[in-house]
Amino acid sequence: MNREQLIAAVKEQMPERRWLHTLGVMETSVILANRFGGDPVKADLAAILHDYCKYWPVQEQAKIIRENELPQDLLAFDKELWHSHAGAYIAKAQFGIEDEEILDAIRYHTSGREQMTLLDKIVCLADYMEPGRDFPAVGLIRELAEHSLEKALVAGFDSTIGFLLSKGKRIYPLTILTRNDLIHQINKE
Amino acid sequence: MNREQLIAAVKEQMPERRWLHTLGVMETSVILANRFGGDPVKADLAAILHDYCKYWPVQEQAKIIRENELPQDLLAFDKELWHSHAGAYIAKAQFGIEDEEILDAIRYHTSGREQMTLLDKIVCLADYMEPGRDFPAVGLIRELAEHSLEKALVAGFDSTIGFLLSKGKRIYPLTILTRNDLIHQINKE
Repeated sequence: MNREQLIAAVKEQMPERRWLHTLGVMETSVILANRFGGDPVKADLAAILHDYCKYWPVQEQAKIIRENELPQDLLAFDKELWHSHAGAYIAKAQFGIEDEEILDAIRYHTSGREQMTLLDKIVCLADYMEPGRDFPAVGLIRELAEHSLEKALVAGFDSTIGFLLSKGKRIYPLTILTRNDLIHQINKE
Repeated sequence: MNREQLIAAVKEQMPERRWLHTLGVMETSVILANRFGGDPVKADLAAILHDYCKYWPVQEQAKIIRENELPQDLLAFDKELWHSHAGAYIAKAQFGIEDEEILDAIRYHTSGREQMTLLDKIVCLADYMEPGRDFPAVGLIRELAEHSLEKALVAGFDSTIGFLLSKGKRIYPLTILTRNDLIHQINKE
């Protein structure tokens, strides 16, 4: 399956406005890869697939997590976290993607993880700041992204955590470990 | 050592304004114990001792943690977390307190923990809302504490986490697990 066929397959999985978001993440991932010395081809491919399962029925996403030894603790947290792991599973099982760097960037684009790779950071940050995004912190995130993937990501996670606090929702612990690790990386510089 | 002697020993460890805070935590702990069916005598004793090490040189607090098999991960986080564990250690080693319920309430009064006991909740919440406290969320916390220890504590931890976010500081993961667990308890009700 070539890139155009893959794009056509992804487009079918989501409403038009979410496809526009995916286009934005593709564009922004390539910009960030070029800015920070990442691989733009891998960034593009991970971005194309990152939201593949986002609009699937949540029960189907949960089924993939339950039946394929993906992290079961996800099921106790926000459904928003599920499509990333389900998407990485489908990218491999259905589209034959074997490159673990690309699969990880899909898998961790929502929660983050400790010791994020450069590609993890690029796709996760692109997802926060693509041109279609509009939320209070997005201007700050884009500004920080001019010079630091890590500082921009911390601002992104701050906004997610702040949102969960304001809604009285539980916070996925890995997101805290991710933010702690990014701050550690920033302080070491 | 009777209660008056203990109070005199505690007073010597801290500046006057912190002693006033301790008095406030003692008073509030007893009120909360009576309100929610806790043990006011244990609450009073834990409150008296909860900040015993707060004004010790941080290196002395760190030394107690390092040399007595207390959680070493504390040392990678905010110094504010150290005095609670050091205090519980001193309460036992120096004042002969053997009641694990009291020691735990001292030990976890800053970070919280999963499955907090009633006494843990009382002392931790009293520390947030004693009459001398003055910060944006304290009114909300006192209001929630009229009816729910758990809701008031979540509001307290929300304010701590929000403060750490705003300062770009790392968050002790146990505090997130604590808040998640309290929300789980509230949702089960």
